[in-house]
Amino acid sequence: MMTEVRVGIIGFGTVGAGVVDCLLRNGDLIGERTGLRPVLARVADLDITSDRGVAVPSGVLTQDAVGLIEDPSVDVVVELIGGTGVAKDFILRALAAGKPVVTANKALLAMHGEEIFSAAERSSADVYYEASVGGGIPCIKAMREGLVGNRIREIVGILNGTCNYILTRMEREGADFEAVLAAAQAAGYAEADPGLDVDGIDTAHKATILASLAYGEWFGMEPLHIEGIRRVSLQDIHYASELGYRIKLLAVIKERDGGVQMRVQPTLIPMSSLLGHVGGVFNAVWVRGDTAGGTMYYGRGAGRDATASAVVADIVDVSLNLKFGSHRRVAAFRPHQGYDRVVPMSDVRTRYYIRLQALDQPGVMALVSGILGRHGISIASVTQKEVNQPSVPMVILTHQAREAAIQSALQEMGRIDEIVEPPAMFRIEDLD
Amino acid sequence: MMTEVRVGIIGFGTVGAGVVDCLLRNGDLIGERTGLRPVLARVADLDITSDRGVAVPSGVLTQDAVGLIEDPSVDVVVELIGGTGVAKDFILRALAAGKPVVTANKALLAMHGEEIFSAAERSSADVYYEASVGGGIPCIKAMREGLVGNRIREIVGILNGTCNYILTRMEREGADFEAVLAAAQAAGYAEADPGLDVDGIDTAHKATILASLAYGEWFGMEPLHIEGIRRVSLQDIHYASELGYRIKLLAVIKERDGGVQMRVQPTLIPMSSLLGHVGGVFNAVWVRGDTAGGTMYYGRGAGRDATASAVVADIVDVSLNLKFGSHRRVAAFRPHQGYDRVVPMSDVRTRYYIRLQALDQPGVMALVSGILGRHGISIASVTQKEVNQPSVPMVILTHQAREAAIQSALQEMGRIDEIVEPPAMFRIEDLD
Repeated sequence: MMTEVRVGIIGFGTVGAGVVDCLLRNGDLIGERTGLRPVLARVADLDITSDRGVAVPSGVLTQDAVGLIEDPSVDVVVELIGGTGVAKDFILRALAAGKPVVTANKALLAMHGEEIFSAAERSSADVYYEASVGGGIPCIKAMREGLVGNRIREIVGILNGTCNYILTRMEREGADFEAVLAAAQAAGYAEADPGLDVDGIDTAHKATILASLAYGEWFGMEPLHIEGIRRVSLQDIHYASELGYRIKLLAVIKERDGGVQMRVQPTLIPMSSLLGHVGGVFNAVWVRGDTAGGTMYYGRGAGRDATASAVVADIVDVSLNLKFGSHRRVAAFRPHQGYDRVVPMSDVRTRYYIRLQALDQPGVMALVSGILGRHGISIASVTQKEVNQPSVPMVILTHQAREAAIQSALQEMGRIDEIVEPPAMFRIEDLD
Repeated sequence: MMTEVRVGIIGFGTVGAGVVDCLLRNGDLIGERTGLRPVLARVADLDITSDRGVAVPSGVLTQDAVGLIEDPSVDVVVELIGGTGVAKDFILRALAAGKPVVTANKALLAMHGEEIFSAAERSSADVYYEASVGGGIPCIKAMREGLVGNRIREIVGILNGTCNYILTRMEREGADFEAVLAAAQAAGYAEADPGLDVDGIDTAHKATILASLAYGEWFGMEPLHIEGIRRVSLQDIHYASELGYRIKLLAVIKERDGGVQMRVQPTLIPMSSLLGHVGGVFNAVWVRGDTAGGTMYYGRGAGRDATASAVVADIVDVSLNLKFGSHRRVAAFRPHQGYDRVVPMSDVRTRYYIRLQALDQPGVMALVSGILGRHGISIASVTQKEVNQPSVPMVILTHQAREAAIQSALQEMGRIDEIVEPPAMFRIEDLD
């Protein structure tokens, strides 16, 4: 019986170097644990001269990715170049050759998952992607296998380390978004073009993967409602904190009203919740199933070694399927009963935090509460701050309300002369 | 190809009823997700008349467990009677018949794991036990598969919901151990005979399973150092809290000095740590690997439905192996390189919390610090409490010290006339 599996890696960047390092360092241990030793067969990259800090055996490096895929001595193909261009071509080519694929490419799966999964089905090949969500946290395996007996009621995730790092530093240091972003960029925690992270796109890629696994329909990006963290102000972090909440960029996925909510939003969560204590670059996924109840998975959501840990776990999984001839024993994605209808954002019901900057004059509160009342929005609490300025902040928490009603009410409030800034609004997740 | 798997359950108690309920409720969904529908074939119990709140199809209930095992139409045997007597016989009989087994029986595995695993190996059958540790949390799958590429540096777990519930209530309500235990017994959160929980035995059963998976040697119970929570006082909870710590019953498993530490102890952990926020009946396992870094797994550690969720996940796993002929694709336990030497408790080095009750007289501090100094124990902080009594509490936190040195020092302190109570001592885990 097969005792070794030969691994070909396309993309010798940070994560590629981490995977090479892990296989060289722990390959023997993995072999003893599983009965199947992963061997580094080929590593393809356009740049095969820069030092990545790992000692690749001679003859392994190549510039020829297609040659790697077609090399009959390569059993498993690992795609780590990212993006939605050649990465897709390489994956489809490997699957067409009947080879199992491991990828960390969340954007590609979010946007072209159906094409890739149907190619895998045609070829009876595995395509695994644990590293695409939550870095080193085995959360996809947990969802797909560990919670297989559960109807998933909701998933709430902190899925982007850069955003969580920025929000954590804003809260701890009282520094504003732009200053912390600049510091994060200088320290290498944020990209020069931070939009993918801070505008919520990366979180949305991961959210749609989790939602699809939970609800049996590959949703893609279209149905997601996405907001980033650029509009999170220090003021709102401070007031949320006084009310016992913390602002996090969340992926919120829920079954409600015969459909599924899928949204990425900066959101207030209770400071006392476990998710509320997930700080810095860490990620966490909280999943509530009908059988297991709430479970949570926590760890490093990115980085060379954490991501490599997930990639290597996938390499082992698909390799064991090669050894046992059990390809697609647990399929990459399998449509199943669940929800194919996405609840439009305007129909979502949740609780809201609203901050108004109003002139300190009698009657403003009556106007505001009148508007909320006419839209059927019930107030849970109001705090008017005492400040020595002509305008004062007024913070309102609502009971459950419909998004469309809130949006209309905010528009009306924006037209009141005594309200001198556009209202700030965030959703609340009580995680109960 | 096989599209259904027929499940036989031995033990129709709380968890058995939960598994029956889950299979009846979600069997079709599981079938769509996995391509293999689990069908309830037989349920064996001595009591087949009491109402368990689930509608078992007619003809399924039987009093004949051996008949269930030998029934050729039963593909998978689930053992949920617990204990180390007939449960073991039933499991060995099922394995001898070549049938895969799913069990939640932590005591049996902790004490007789090697016998069971070698029987499974002889028969080429699977024996899975996700529900034995951490209830509904898929932590064994995470350790064995998700972190397969990692050398495990340490595992720190809150593994007993009863103890965590008692300690959480003591801290929140200022009620003492006996009072909270009585309340927990009345509410059904603690057994009439609470020893298995509060003396740390149940945590130790789970700790030895996790340690064995991490370090490649089935350790059994013998090498474990076990202390329970009966000696945790409100006073120590209070002083720990003032110093930024919380007392939890922990399983601590670490590789250190070429061996592995395995201990179950009430321990101070930082309030600011994520593990420190795991309250009530919840469990959590924090695992640090050389590749993934720290990851944590959280959820309900016990209860009908949470445990059923883990049992059903195992049923699916072993059933897919039946379908694909991939028995033992991931073996229940496989010895591998790691550590077979257990560090004796006397050689463990960690930080310590020591509380002395001393007469309020000059010179006592000098005596105490002299003793610590002579044993090479370095003091990190000392707090002497001001109380209006002849004796005053003195709380000392040490730097890293050797257990044997601490034990000798405590004995010497106990002989000082001015120290009027036996010293209280707890270890500290800083989780860094």
